[in-house]
Amino acid sequence: MTINKFKGTRMLEVIHSPEDMFKLSRGIRKGGNSIGFVPTMGYLHQGHISLIDRARKENDIVVVSIFVNPLQFGKNEDLDRYPRDFERDYSLCKDAKVDYIFYPSYSDMYPEDFNTYVEVKELSEILCGAFRPGHFRGVTTVVLKLFNIVSPDRAYFGKKDYQQLQIIKRMVKDLNIPVEIVACPTVREPDGLAMSSRNRYLSPEERLSATYISKALFKIKDAFDRGASEVWRLKEVGLDVLNKAPLIGEIQYLEVVHPENLKSREYAQKGDVVAVAVFIGNTRLIDNIEL
Amino acid sequence: MTINKFKGTRMLEVIHSPEDMFKLSRGIRKGGNSIGFVPTMGYLHQGHISLIDRARKENDIVVVSIFVNPLQFGKNEDLDRYPRDFERDYSLCKDAKVDYIFYPSYSDMYPEDFNTYVEVKELSEILCGAFRPGHFRGVTTVVLKLFNIVSPDRAYFGKKDYQQLQIIKRMVKDLNIPVEIVACPTVREPDGLAMSSRNRYLSPEERLSATYISKALFKIKDAFDRGASEVWRLKEVGLDVLNKAPLIGEIQYLEVVHPENLKSREYAQKGDVVAVAVFIGNTRLIDNIEL
Repeated sequence: MTINKFKGTRMLEVIHSPEDMFKLSRGIRKGGNSIGFVPTMGYLHQGHISLIDRARKENDIVVVSIFVNPLQFGKNEDLDRYPRDFERDYSLCKDAKVDYIFYPSYSDMYPEDFNTYVEVKELSEILCGAFRPGHFRGVTTVVLKLFNIVSPDRAYFGKKDYQQLQIIKRMVKDLNIPVEIVACPTVREPDGLAMSSRNRYLSPEERLSATYISKALFKIKDAFDRGASEVWRLKEVGLDVLNKAPLIGEIQYLEVVHPENLKSREYAQKGDVVAVAVFIGNTRLIDNIEL
Repeated sequence: MTINKFKGTRMLEVIHSPEDMFKLSRGIRKGGNSIGFVPTMGYLHQGHISLIDRARKENDIVVVSIFVNPLQFGKNEDLDRYPRDFERDYSLCKDAKVDYIFYPSYSDMYPEDFNTYVEVKELSEILCGAFRPGHFRGVTTVVLKLFNIVSPDRAYFGKKDYQQLQIIKRMVKDLNIPVEIVACPTVREPDGLAMSSRNRYLSPEERLSATYISKALFKIKDAFDRGASEVWRLKEVGLDVLNKAPLIGEIQYLEVVHPENLKSREYAQKGDVVAVAVFIGNTRLIDNIEL
């Protein structure tokens, strides 16, 4: 099957079966058209839309997957309450001129005897990985599956999930996966909060408190730009802000790390990443900024 | 790049770099030609040649990889003394009308910061996996890499390494890898010994002793065909033969297992597999037979 589908003539189609999606993708590629792929867990926000827009610009066909991947949730995490709204997602994808939504069921992705895992060692064990054991193994496993099913030319990931991005880049390099990974900037609310599907968990008070997260990061960047480079000092600047947030819970980490190997630094360097994970009430939020 | 290379006009080329191999494969596929792939660790024997012949029949282009994969050897295993003879392999490939040998270096396949692994749980932990921890993780990781680099339509594996074959089939299914796995019969010496590159380790006395391995399997099959199905009884039949072998060392396992999930049986069924691993002197040999 050869698919010739050109810009401007598209309709949005929903594909459920991995086999159908694979045949479709192969047809698109055979027809000489490129595929841009945006893997998501649905409940789309402007961050996702920015990935779709970028994919739209750089490819002939855009595929968005919507799959809340149980493999990347821990036992006591928010799998069951993770927000879902397919109709809303469909409509957002339509507006964003997506060509195909790949929307598989759990059993399509993980048949009963499923038992194969892809793991990037070390990178998956630090920062968020230290607090969410198995999380990144779930991410890399599903992303590899999705890459094989969708066979995109390019796949788009937000820098909001910075560690995830680096882990996927490493997986792609280590396993010779023929997909170009495109990193896109974090999209923020006007008050600085990084967009995330999990923001909808926040009560109005928590939502207000959550703004301290990006404030802390901006203040650290500011201090760095003015010459501070000792990491203990930069962390102090950030913690001062975070500790002023009214409903802040556990601060899981606040680290200055190498942008690729994510190792902690003693002295911050230009291009390093400041990454943070905190609880606001029961909601775990992450954010980061590049120095 | 589009490659149009037709049967009868071929020359054998050696490709070292994964990037070159990938571009070449992509060109072949774009040109509408199919690729049959035979991954090997070199030191080719008639078993490999039978895989190549089958690949030759079913595909336009045949690629053989030669790579002694350190990742699948344990610390005290035979990585250093594993037999290598590229010139001989080249000449055998030429005679067998192979189109390309992919012959990467260690550092091409595993750059210094390599840290990603693919693992099929459970299946990799039993039989040989119980005695060679990490072995199958090394196999699945390199095979996935090779599949991504060579992007074959079909890949050919011998049933001699029966557990490996089932693990690769499971990996391909679980990770939606678009490669058809073709299983080929074990090729045996006239006296029944399964062909293996490791047979060259055997002294003449050991070589003679090694024939008892397949004798044991044939005798078990014979007993099964005549109506015996209790596995303890079938094992006894096999062990009686093995224990007569003059230079036999440790018998690591002799099991009757389900052909796909490789679980041990109490009562053998048609289609089950009898698998064995033994030491003859310092050489570990495996073999199996389908009931």
